[in-house]
Amino acid sequence: MREYLENVRAKAPLVHNITNYVTVNDVANILLACGGSPIMSDEAEDVEDITSVCGGLNLNIGTLHKSSIEGMLRAGRKANELGHPVLLDPVGAGASSFRTGTALLLMRELKLTAIRGNMSEIRALALGIGNTKGVDADKADAVTEENLDAAVSFVKRFAEQTGSVIAVTGAIDLVSDGKRCWVIRNGRTEMERVTGTGCQLSGMMTAYLTANPDHHAEAAAAAVCAMGLAGETGWSRMQEGDGNATYRNRIIDAVYNMTGDMLEKGADYEVR
Amino acid sequence: MREYLENVRAKAPLVHNITNYVTVNDVANILLACGGSPIMSDEAEDVEDITSVCGGLNLNIGTLHKSSIEGMLRAGRKANELGHPVLLDPVGAGASSFRTGTALLLMRELKLTAIRGNMSEIRALALGIGNTKGVDADKADAVTEENLDAAVSFVKRFAEQTGSVIAVTGAIDLVSDGKRCWVIRNGRTEMERVTGTGCQLSGMMTAYLTANPDHHAEAAAAAVCAMGLAGETGWSRMQEGDGNATYRNRIIDAVYNMTGDMLEKGADYEVR
Amino acid sequence: MREYLENVRAKAPLVHNITNYVTVNDVANILLACGGSPIMSDEAEDVEDITSVCGGLNLNIGTLHKSSIEGMLRAGRKANELGHPVLLDPVGAGASSFRTGTALLLMRELKLTAIRGNMSEIRALALGIGNTKGVDADKADAVTEENLDAAVSFVKRFAEQTGSVIAVTGAIDLVSDGKRCWVIRNGRTEMERVTGTGCQLSGMMTAYLTANPDHHAEAAAAAVCAMGLAGETGWSRMQEGDGNATYRNRIIDAVYNMTGDMLEKGADYEVR
Repeated sequence: MREYLENVRAKAPLVHNITNYVTVNDVANILLACGGSPIMSDEAEDVEDITSVCGGLNLNIGTLHKSSIEGMLRAGRKANELGHPVLLDPVGAGASSFRTGTALLLMRELKLTAIRGNMSEIRALALGIGNTKGVDADKADAVTEENLDAAVSFVKRFAEQTGSVIAVTGAIDLVSDGKRCWVIRNGRTEMERVTGTGCQLSGMMTAYLTANPDHHAEAAAAAVCAMGLAGETGWSRMQEGDGNATYRNRIIDAVYNMTGDMLEKGADYEVR
Repeated sequence: MREYLENVRAKAPLVHNITNYVTVNDVANILLACGGSPIMSDEAEDVEDITSVCGGLNLNIGTLHKSSIEGMLRAGRKANELGHPVLLDPVGAGASSFRTGTALLLMRELKLTAIRGNMSEIRALALGIGNTKGVDADKADAVTEENLDAAVSFVKRFAEQTGSVIAVTGAIDLVSDGKRCWVIRNGRTEMERVTGTGCQLSGMMTAYLTANPDHHAEAAAAAVCAMGLAGETGWSRMQEGDGNATYRNRIIDAVYNMTGDMLEKGADYEVR
Repeated sequence: MREYLENVRAKAPLVHNITNYVTVNDVANILLACGGSPIMSDEAEDVEDITSVCGGLNLNIGTLHKSSIEGMLRAGRKANELGHPVLLDPVGAGASSFRTGTALLLMRELKLTAIRGNMSEIRALALGIGNTKGVDADKADAVTEENLDAAVSFVKRFAEQTGSVIAVTGAIDLVSDGKRCWVIRNGRTEMERVTGTGCQLSGMMTAYLTANPDHHAEAAAAAVCAMGLAGETGWSRMQEGDGNATYRNRIIDAVYNMTGDMLEKGADYEVR
C-alpha cells in the first residue's frame, strides 16, 4: 500500500469536486491532508475549464440540485475525454427517486473509474431498488462476517458489470475491480458519528486514483485502508470529554501525518 | 429533562434539514452528537421522498434562495401530512423583507410545531416589523431580568396565537406553548462568538421534537437546556490560547458526551 | 498596526459576505474571532436589504454560480451607494474564463475598495491572461526575495490603475494603494495546507476596512499581518499528531485571542 500513498504525496494531484455543501470543507481539508489539492466548481459554464486544469473528478450527489446535473455531465464528459479518473459517490441513492435516477444517469452517460458508497446505496444502483436510511449506512445492509461471502460475490459482480472499481464501505469495507476483492477491516464504528467520513474518503480516493493511473483498484483499496487507519489513529488520540467534533479533526490530522510506512504496517486487509 | 434526551438516544430520529450553507456541517455533527441522524436536501424534486424516510423537518432560512422556497413548502406539506414535527428557524427575519416575507409565508402555509429564533427575529414575525442586526441577537432586543415579565407574556401570547411552540434564545432563553413558559438560564455569552449555535440548536431541537411526540414543549425546553449546558461544559474544557474555533468543537463534543443524568442535574430553569 | 485591530474590536463591524460554500463557515468564525459579525446572503432579492444593515461587503467567487452574479452586482451597487467598502476575492481567476470574466465584470461595474488574491489570480486580472493552478498559489507565481522588486512594482502599478488597494498573498505578502507597498513576511507555508485561509483573510480584511474608513491601505496591511501572525501563533501551539484540521482551529483561535499589542509586536513588514 505504501507506494499508492507516496504517489499522492509526490504528484500532488489537483482534484475537481462537484460535491454537497454539507461536508465540502472537510473534503477540501482531507485532500490537502493526503497531499492533493482541491478545487470546487459546479456551475455548468465553469466546469470544463476547471476540470481541464485538474487531474481527477469527484462527483457527489449529497445535496443534489437539478441545476448541477448539467455541470456533472459536462465535467464528466470532459474528464473522460482527457482520460482523468472520475469517481461517483451516490449519496442517498435508494432514498429518493431523484437521487437514484441521477446516479443511474451519470452511470449511463459517463465512464466511471470508481463508485464509492455504503451497501444500501450500491445495492440501489445495482438492483434499481433501494432501502437506504439516509446518508449513513443502514444497519440492516451492513457487511458482516456472516454475510461476507455473499457480499464479496455481489460487489465483484457489480464491478464486472459496470467496469468501475466498486468500493462499499461500512464495518467491513469491500473494494473490487471485478476479479479481485479487497476485504478491509480498518476503521472504527465511531466514524459513523462524524458527518461526511464517506464523502471525505471519496475525495481522497479520487486523489489516489489520479496519482496511480495504472493501479486504480489497488489505489482505491489503499485509500480505504488509509481512511480506516486514520480513524484508528485519530481515536487513539481522543481524550476524556472529546466527542465527534474533535474526532473529525483528529481523523483529518491522522491523514496529514500518515506516511507510506504507517499505511503499509497499519493496513488490515485480505484479497479474495 | 432526562427522558427527553434519552428518547433521542433510544429512537435515533432521522431529521431532514433544509438549511443554510454556512453552518450546515455543524448542524449535521450536532445531530449525530445528540443521537439523531441528519439528511440534507433542498431540491424541490427531492424533498418529498427524503422527508418521507425521516421523522422530522428542520427549516432554516439563513441563506435562503428563491429556488429553495418551493422545496421548503413541498417538504413541509409532506411532513405535515405524515404528522412529522416541523421546526422553523427564521434566521434574519426582520433584516430583509425577503426573509421576513418568506418566514411569514411558511407560517401561513405550514403547520409549524416550533419556531426558534432570537428576540428580534421572533418579534419581526410577531409584529410584522423588524429591527434585527444580522443573525446574532440584537443586544437591544435581549431578554434580561429587567424585561423578563414582559418578554414571558409576549412569548406566551405569540405561542398561543400561532399554535407553535416558541423558543426565543439569548442570554435568557424562553420556551412556551402558550400556557407555560420555561425560563432557562443555561449557556454562556461566549457562545455568540461561535457561528451557528442557534442553527445547531434548531437541528437538535427537531430531533428532540421527533423523539418526544407527546411532549413537544418539554422536549423543546430540554433541547435548549442541553445546548446551554453543552456551552457551559465546553467552556470548562477551554485551555489557554483556545478561542471560538476550539469552542465550537467543545460544544458539540459536550453534546456527544451528555447523558440524561447530566442534563437533569445541569438544566437551570423555572416554569412560569 | 495596533489601532486598526482595536478599531475592529471597538466597532464590531457587520460584514455582508457573498462567498463560496467551501470555506464559508471558517469565514464566519474568523469574522467573529476578530471582533466583527458575519451575514451571508447571495439571493438577488435579498442582498440590498442585507447589505444596507451591514458596514462592508466581501465578494468571493470561489464556487461562483451564474445566479449569484446578479446578487453580487446588486449588493455591490448598493454598498457603493452607501459608501461601504467592497472587497473582491477573485478565487480561481485565470483558471477558467467564467471566473476571470466575472471578476473583470465586477471590477468594471463596481468601485472596489480592495482586491485580495494570490499572484496568479491578480496577474490574471491585470493581464487578462491566467496561469492559475487551482485556488492555492501557483509556486511559479510566488513572490520571492528574488523577484520582489518586480512584484512590488507590478502590484503598485495595478493598484494605481484600478484605484483599489491590492493585496497579493503568498510566502511574501504585498499590499499596495498605488503609492506605498507593504511587504509582509508573517505567516507559515503550512497555512497552504488549510483550505480557505485566503478566503478567511478576505473576510477579516473587509472587517478591517469597514472599521478603518480613513485608512484602507493600512487596515488591509494590518489584516494581512494579523492573519500571518495568527498562522505563526497557531503553529506554535501544535502538538505531536496534530495536522491541518487542528491547525485550522488554532489559526482562528489565535485571531480570537490577538490584541492590538500582540499585533504591533508581531507584525513583520516594511513599507516600500
